[in-house]
Amino acid sequence: MTSPSELRKDPVSGRWVIIASERSKRPDDFRPAKTAERPRGPSTFCPFCAGNEAKTPPEIFSLSGPPAGPGAPPSWRVRVVPNKFPAVSRGEAPVRVRRGLFESMPGIGVHEVVIESPDHDREMADLPVDHIRDILATYQARLRSIGAEPQYAYIQLFKNKGMEAGASLSHPHTQIVAVPIIPKRVKEEIYSSERFHRRTGDCLFCQSLAEELKAGERIVLKNAHFAAVEPFASRFPFETRIFPLRHAPFFGSAGPEEIAALAETLSKVLAKLKSLLADPAYNLVLHQSPNSVCGRRLWPELERISHWYMEIIPVLTHVAGFEWGTGFYINPVAPESAAKFLRD
Amino acid sequence: MTSPSELRKDPVSGRWVIIASERSKRPDDFRPAKTAERPRGPSTFCPFCAGNEAKTPPEIFSLSGPPAGPGAPPSWRVRVVPNKFPAVSRGEAPVRVRRGLFESMPGIGVHEVVIESPDHDREMADLPVDHIRDILATYQARLRSIGAEPQYAYIQLFKNKGMEAGASLSHPHTQIVAVPIIPKRVKEEIYSSERFHRRTGDCLFCQSLAEELKAGERIVLKNAHFAAVEPFASRFPFETRIFPLRHAPFFGSAGPEEIAALAETLSKVLAKLKSLLADPAYNLVLHQSPNSVCGRRLWPELERISHWYMEIIPVLTHVAGFEWGTGFYINPVAPESAAKFLRD
Repeated sequence: MTSPSELRKDPVSGRWVIIASERSKRPDDFRPAKTAERPRGPSTFCPFCAGNEAKTPPEIFSLSGPPAGPGAPPSWRVRVVPNKFPAVSRGEAPVRVRRGLFESMPGIGVHEVVIESPDHDREMADLPVDHIRDILATYQARLRSIGAEPQYAYIQLFKNKGMEAGASLSHPHTQIVAVPIIPKRVKEEIYSSERFHRRTGDCLFCQSLAEELKAGERIVLKNAHFAAVEPFASRFPFETRIFPLRHAPFFGSAGPEEIAALAETLSKVLAKLKSLLADPAYNLVLHQSPNSVCGRRLWPELERISHWYMEIIPVLTHVAGFEWGTGFYINPVAPESAAKFLRD
Repeated sequence: MTSPSELRKDPVSGRWVIIASERSKRPDDFRPAKTAERPRGPSTFCPFCAGNEAKTPPEIFSLSGPPAGPGAPPSWRVRVVPNKFPAVSRGEAPVRVRRGLFESMPGIGVHEVVIESPDHDREMADLPVDHIRDILATYQARLRSIGAEPQYAYIQLFKNKGMEAGASLSHPHTQIVAVPIIPKRVKEEIYSSERFHRRTGDCLFCQSLAEELKAGERIVLKNAHFAAVEPFASRFPFETRIFPLRHAPFFGSAGPEEIAALAETLSKVLAKLKSLLADPAYNLVLHQSPNSVCGRRLWPELERISHWYMEIIPVLTHVAGFEWGTGFYINPVAPESAAKFLRD
């Protein structure tokens, strides 16, 4: 099967992009984009709602729900399906093509959707903690399964909540995209952590978390397994990172007790953001180690220098010209104030 | 004078942020941010409109307008004032402070606003070409003046048009921010160009422009001095770069004939984007060499490897979780299609 999308590398910055023309249509489809508001509510058609299962591509994974009555269709709590308009598609390890300065390769990868619950109108912040735990366990199952395929160098799990955060369907869902190369941003973090490890013998993330815990003023909450922090150099107001206290490169390795603690942490943080910031759009982003097979070629100490964490970025400001030019961000709320506001 | 803002460095990514708490207020000011729409039109109060000159900080520079009648206030065509809520403030070269992993320095710099015309409702796309030329000449004058102060390592000129692009005032304006360090993103581009220059003796930007011109399919327009291109690895639909054909590190060095050609190029590109994409919000970003005094310490060949250009990013999609996690962008419109659409 040939992939309909293409990965291209910018010759100056070294940054890769996915040109996924089949996801949208013709250029003039952008004309009305500004005013396109998706309808909300279970009454309008939604392929992710209970009862519409036949409208998605065939199910990959699900956790079943409470037993239904006789004759009723089987129910589910969390459901995973392939993305109907994938940015990348399964295939063999791709070959790079080079024409002069312009490098590209077929858009090989995996693109799945985790439907977080059958209920269209209950956001993750509204779900009971045990349901969030089930969602996290589903993430783990899919990440472990895709992680076993070594042609996918990096797996990105992320959730776009709200149109301003890039969501095109309002039914709560998470996406998983696996790509055949290690993204530059991920590489940079690991190279930085490797330099620190060579100098000190420690994990840069463990050390930076230890310093945040010692300073205290940017901590939102802490339990036996996790700490939620507004980082020292936050790019955005209320940018929040949730770090596991135990060093581990992969989210998939978190045990049941850790997953339960993470569900509780996420539930609290998301509920605070929702109530205090008027239900903002946000991105939730998992950071973790690249696939070990690929990663160890670059970093023999990969497992010691990689440390997974989750990041929540509420969409309260807009990325503007200064940020695009410099990569600097101007943050109008000090993380110390944001943490205090969320704590109190 | 002490600066009210602070520059902070992220210990993992090495990225700097500006924590500018005085620009906004208390954290709970973010509650109604989603619905805050600024009023438009000359009837509502705007500090940038003709007649309200006393409401801005004292003028730094202006180009005078047509002579007014006897007794009338002096008129202007383009006007530069300090930003009333600056992200950075003038001062001596700052000292870095380090506490454990956390590095910071005072927010020293320059933050100015170029008011593009006295008319609240005429966007750059609507202005006559000779007025755009005056705006560009004003940019040059301010960049040259600030560039003479070597404590400012990099000067970023940018324009945010529309709320979705980060504009907080609708009266057409451009901002200039000078910072005391060379941003990581700028460094990366120059290091990349330096490696290319060492290998080939050529400028990476000149070469990549030559390849784009040869391929042709991503060129929007070309005149005697400039080419407008939808780059090979465009991150966003209709991302457009305007490259000078003549190699030059600084925008300030463009001669009057080049400025006239750039005004014409900008006018055409902005008018096409406005009419074909339903007047999108956009960011206009200048890329140029860091201050020579600072830059030459890192790159002895700075003038040969730095090449200025302008970038226009229409806000048609949202930066989403996948982008935040990986630095990859998913672009649903191939640049070849975008260029064809803008050309025809």
